[in-house]
Amino acid sequence: MIYELYYWPSVQGRGEFVRLALEEGGAQYRDVARESGKGTGMAAMMRLLNGRVARPPFAPPFLKAGRLLIGQTANILQFLGPRHGLAPKALAGRLWTHQLQLTIVDFLVEIHDSHHPVAGGLYYEDQRREARRRAADFVMNRLPKFLGYFETVLAQRASGKHYALGAHLSYVDLSLFQIISGLNFAFPRAMAGARRKYPRLLALHSRIQDRPRIAAYLASPRRIAFNNEGIFRHYPELDAAR
Amino acid sequence: MIYELYYWPSVQGRGEFVRLALEEGGAQYRDVARESGKGTGMAAMMRLLNGRVARPPFAPPFLKAGRLLIGQTANILQFLGPRHGLAPKALAGRLWTHQLQLTIVDFLVEIHDSHHPVAGGLYYEDQRREARRRAADFVMNRLPKFLGYFETVLAQRASGKHYALGAHLSYVDLSLFQIISGLNFAFPRAMAGARRKYPRLLALHSRIQDRPRIAAYLASPRRIAFNNEGIFRHYPELDAAR
Repeated sequence: MIYELYYWPSVQGRGEFVRLALEEGGAQYRDVARESGKGTGMAAMMRLLNGRVARPPFAPPFLKAGRLLIGQTANILQFLGPRHGLAPKALAGRLWTHQLQLTIVDFLVEIHDSHHPVAGGLYYEDQRREARRRAADFVMNRLPKFLGYFETVLAQRASGKHYALGAHLSYVDLSLFQIISGLNFAFPRAMAGARRKYPRLLALHSRIQDRPRIAAYLASPRRIAFNNEGIFRHYPELDAAR
Repeated sequence: MIYELYYWPSVQGRGEFVRLALEEGGAQYRDVARESGKGTGMAAMMRLLNGRVARPPFAPPFLKAGRLLIGQTANILQFLGPRHGLAPKALAGRLWTHQLQLTIVDFLVEIHDSHHPVAGGLYYEDQRREARRRAADFVMNRLPKFLGYFETVLAQRASGKHYALGAHLSYVDLSLFQIISGLNFAFPRAMAGARRKYPRLLALHSRIQDRPRIAAYLASPRRIAFNNEGIFRHYPELDAAR
């Protein structure tokens, strides 16, 4: 099966969490909104988003898998995980994997809202004052709370088996890689001491980055570069030293 | 099995979505943080939250189900759904049900942040100015977008079968009931025209309210009243007429 991923073409955004799973899982997929030609591109995505499909997604990303049309990032990963060796198949393991992913989703909302505390539909420039307050709280309180949580989860696994679930890689590890990559881009000053404070998370980030399929993906044109249109944005005035 | 729910004792919050499913599903459960006595109450909740449990939750609510400890509201509902006749068992139906629930979760974050756009850890009074801007955008843009989406989902089902999935009640319907109830409390002016704009959602709300188990629950002391400590808060200055 060739999956069809639909996501905004110019940013990594939430689509990137799905891309990383598809790449590491060795899945065949099309990134439809980034293609050009008949029946592709943004037009194809908007047709499904606004169309009279039986199960309409609220927002991208969504994934076509045969006759299934699946929305919500964590839901897509939950679907892909067991199919591509990126999640356990037993109930308890599946629930825990998904629970961690949903916590990453919560974190991601807060990362986004650090620069858009008033409205996603307004420009950053129209909410700079509010963003300074929100980002200050984010860097001081929320960032350490979330990173500390995931560091604890990693620390609880047996030593030397530094994946979130223990010995086996999962989509959660790929998502944590993306979170750390994005935070390094957006908040380089706040993240300066991270290697000391969150050694397991940072080691996980390096290890994922070096995996052959991920390394090949990151070096390919399929990987969109971080930019200030996405979820992770670098505004020096929001990146306070901690 | 007697489930153990853990959630902050004085607000409905995210715990309420789980309570509604447990009540409608006829499940036996304890609401542990609201109990008093040895091994119960907030102390019992904080022990699991900060403790060295194998799979620590990031935040309440979480549910003990035998040996499982499950965190994240939507994850808990996904677990309970098929066990209590509140979700389909087949893959496509499960994914769609969960996708709708995750969209409700997104909506809930935006409802909360309408009065807390800067930081959940600060008082409302310390972010009133920012809240006025955020709530204005929420009422103008986000509220109609989310409600319009769920109205469309209801409209796509066969007429007379007004549940989100069609003929069968699911935890999504219970959560939509809670969303509408909360919005009516928090934004009475903005919701004044809702019965005309979102007739199916409002009819669903009435129908769920009248279900025997839900009606009994709502009339019982187990139902915490809405109050201005929770996710849904009534601040007249944030409730602009639309």
